[in-house]
Amino acid sequence: MPTAQILTIGDELLSGDTVNTNLAYLGERCRRLGFEVVRALSVRDRIPEIVAAVADVTVDLCLVSGGLGPTSDDLTAEAVALAAGVPLVRDAASEAAIAAVFAGFGRPMPDINRKQADLPAGCDVLPNPVGTAPGFAASCRAAATSPACRGCRAR
Amino acid sequence: MPTAQILTIGDELLSGDTVNTNLAYLGERCRRLGFEVVRALSVRDRIPEIVAAVADVTVDLCLVSGGLGPTSDDLTAEAVALAAGVPLVRDAASEAAIAAVFAGFGRPMPDINRKQADLPAGCDVLPNPVGTAPGFAASCRAAATSPACRGCRAR
Repeated sequence: MPTAQILTIGDELLSGDTVNTNLAYLGERCRRLGFEVVRALSVRDRIPEIVAAVADVTVDLCLVSGGLGPTSDDLTAEAVALAAGVPLVRDAASEAAIAAVFAGFGRPMPDINRKQADLPAGCDVLPNPVGTAPGFAASCRAAATSPACRGCRAR
Repeated sequence: MPTAQILTIGDELLSGDTVNTNLAYLGERCRRLGFEVVRALSVRDRIPEIVAAVADVTVDLCLVSGGLGPTSDDLTAEAVALAAGVPLVRDAASEAAIAAVFAGFGRPMPDINRKQADLPAGCDVLPNPVGTAPGFAASCRAAATSPACRGCRAR
């Protein structure tokens, strides 16, 4: 059976402010899809800690949750790009999709939200039908900093 | 500020069967006590995975939750003993306390529960006023397998 790890990102998960219900949801979904979740890790909103967590992956699939919002403490895309050894690039389709979400509310897209369209070069974009942040799937397999990371999906 | 990690043990935390509310509770308690929780890890009920998790600790305090029950998949004391490089020894006071819990129910202690009194040699026992499993505090600081582990409390 293929193995998976779940990486959840956010200070609020460690301080006790938030119960990590995402973990149980993702664990159950992985199981249904035929993956055995062998490890779950939560780290703070800090680039080096997220990069280290991604680089340390030894399973077939690492699901990443958290840190895709528009504010300065949302660092997942930047950290995964670093771990994969690729730059962040703005994805035009994602930027348009985010603008469309705001248009649906009759509001212009705040500049701060454009950052949510900045994704690791070469990733597969996972469109988000229910919010602004697109997900993405990136391989860290070839990255010098994370030779063991076989797959990484962030959403 | 001293740093802490929370290690929660149990297949049910990874499969989605159980929401990890212990993590939020312990995170909040750590914060109140002046520790910053920098990392939370959940692993399966497997000796090598628990030993590796304990040996990998680089913070001032590692709080461990889970795996102290009487059944064969409760492996925390054995794993911490391995990580600390000490044997498991039966703690007479804990054994008596467990027997007293059962006596309170008017029942003899099942043999299987004696195992809950087997604790790493030299640990500080943390009596349990509300259940059978005693907690314990063990230092893995001097263990060859875990030079970075400065402290470990399991309950």
